[in-house]
Amino acid sequence: MKLLRYGPSGAEKPGLLDTDGQVRDLSEVVSDIAGDVLSDAGLDALRTVDPQTLPVVEGNPRIGPCVGQVGKFICIGLNYSDHAEEAGMQLPDEPVVFAKATSAISGPNDDVEIPRGGEKTDWEVELGFVIGKTAKYVSVEDALDYVAGYCVVNDVSERDFQLHRSGQWIKGKSCDTFGPIGPWLVTRDEVPNPQDLEMYLDVNGERQQSGSTRTMHFTVAQIIAHLSQFMSLQPGDVITTGTPPGVGMGQKPERYLKAGDVMELGVSGLGGQTQKVVAG
Amino acid sequence: MKLLRYGPSGAEKPGLLDTDGQVRDLSEVVSDIAGDVLSDAGLDALRTVDPQTLPVVEGNPRIGPCVGQVGKFICIGLNYSDHAEEAGMQLPDEPVVFAKATSAISGPNDDVEIPRGGEKTDWEVELGFVIGKTAKYVSVEDALDYVAGYCVVNDVSERDFQLHRSGQWIKGKSCDTFGPIGPWLVTRDEVPNPQDLEMYLDVNGERQQSGSTRTMHFTVAQIIAHLSQFMSLQPGDVITTGTPPGVGMGQKPERYLKAGDVMELGVSGLGGQTQKVVAG
Repeated sequence: MKLLRYGPSGAEKPGLLDTDGQVRDLSEVVSDIAGDVLSDAGLDALRTVDPQTLPVVEGNPRIGPCVGQVGKFICIGLNYSDHAEEAGMQLPDEPVVFAKATSAISGPNDDVEIPRGGEKTDWEVELGFVIGKTAKYVSVEDALDYVAGYCVVNDVSERDFQLHRSGQWIKGKSCDTFGPIGPWLVTRDEVPNPQDLEMYLDVNGERQQSGSTRTMHFTVAQIIAHLSQFMSLQPGDVITTGTPPGVGMGQKPERYLKAGDVMELGVSGLGGQTQKVVAG
Repeated sequence: MKLLRYGPSGAEKPGLLDTDGQVRDLSEVVSDIAGDVLSDAGLDALRTVDPQTLPVVEGNPRIGPCVGQVGKFICIGLNYSDHAEEAGMQLPDEPVVFAKATSAISGPNDDVEIPRGGEKTDWEVELGFVIGKTAKYVSVEDALDYVAGYCVVNDVSERDFQLHRSGQWIKGKSCDTFGPIGPWLVTRDEVPNPQDLEMYLDVNGERQQSGSTRTMHFTVAQIIAHLSQFMSLQPGDVITTGTPPGVGMGQKPERYLKAGDVMELGVSGLGGQTQKVVAG
């Protein structure tokens, strides 16, 4: 299934993308794409509903973040071997973990705001996933059972805030609109191998990033097992897995976003995002 | 007012501590100590209620975290001049910001769990505060208007996870039970000067930390103004402001928690916490 949330920011309704690409309203079935709805039982219950019986959503509503009530937004840094090479950095011995503020979460096609004082706002197309049930001290073997589904994430980053403002990365990762997620949450049964997905990101129609989750250093399963040793993961937590080569900071000369730029990005099978960049 | 939440974990009810030290039930007035209830209007509405008309909560219920639906749990590192001196570290030029997972939040007297593999679990008594209304790009002068109230926080930390597991501090700060907050949320009108509060922490009856918010390097107002340049702060966000001298890592030899230890800590006017340490 491709689950989504549509409507005005903060008042999104749950929906489903049918096989004809039409958005169907799920409001009569569940209150949100969140919490228990993401469990195996919750998703199985949704599978019993015939999409053809659901109301078609008319017009062209805004698509919101594909999951609601997100408790944690966790990111993995420096997780692609070809990106590490490009950056001249060594791959870490274990996953580099940092947080984005959940208030940074936005819809896949919402404007991205350059924060005041920010001169190095950069892009990062990533494979994200959403937790479906509580994970604590889980093994790599069992880890994928805890995934509700996958989605595209743009881990927008202000490099100066991230790297030169007293040490921890969160300052450059958490500005409002720095976390577009979606358009769809694609349930894990439709993603048989999360380690074989192509991804791309264009700025103003020019290809900047292209890569594949094949070159991820720590796999989705390894990330879940690792994180679950340090914190419990809960339904609705969003975890994003690092970016392939081609970020602005990695280019010579460095290249950053300016108001008016347009980012287009996607991951195979998970849909695409388009964001206009605006001044904050 | 001293607002609180009581009852089983995950099913807390809102309450209020009356001037006789009795817990009164607020369930008929508000659904939770969270969100809009924390706004100036929300708190003013609560002030119109005569506590004597509210049901007394009988027995000795568990006290939960003093605020619900926490969106962000943000911490400030190395923020006491005497702690920096003790640690032989320089005070930072601007606040060091990191996150705890919101899943780490626990009640003020709940057990604290040493995570599996953790051998350096440490204590940090801190002054915490809770945001009452959205703050974005606010000035130092206006900053305290955005505070709903103050509370005690124990920023429990696993030092090896924090410092030696691939760089970012979040891994050592986010284990389940690493964030006792409460017992009360003391509204800001009852804390005329957050920069003049005494604080202490004992382990097994022995004083480990004693300090005062007078030696904080960045004040509450400065922290709010600073953070709000990097992310928007929202009602219910919990921010904790750093710890004074006396953490286990700062002692010679270093001293860490073990199962069976008991921590008692408090901040003047904000009440106290007691936690037993257990194995995870």
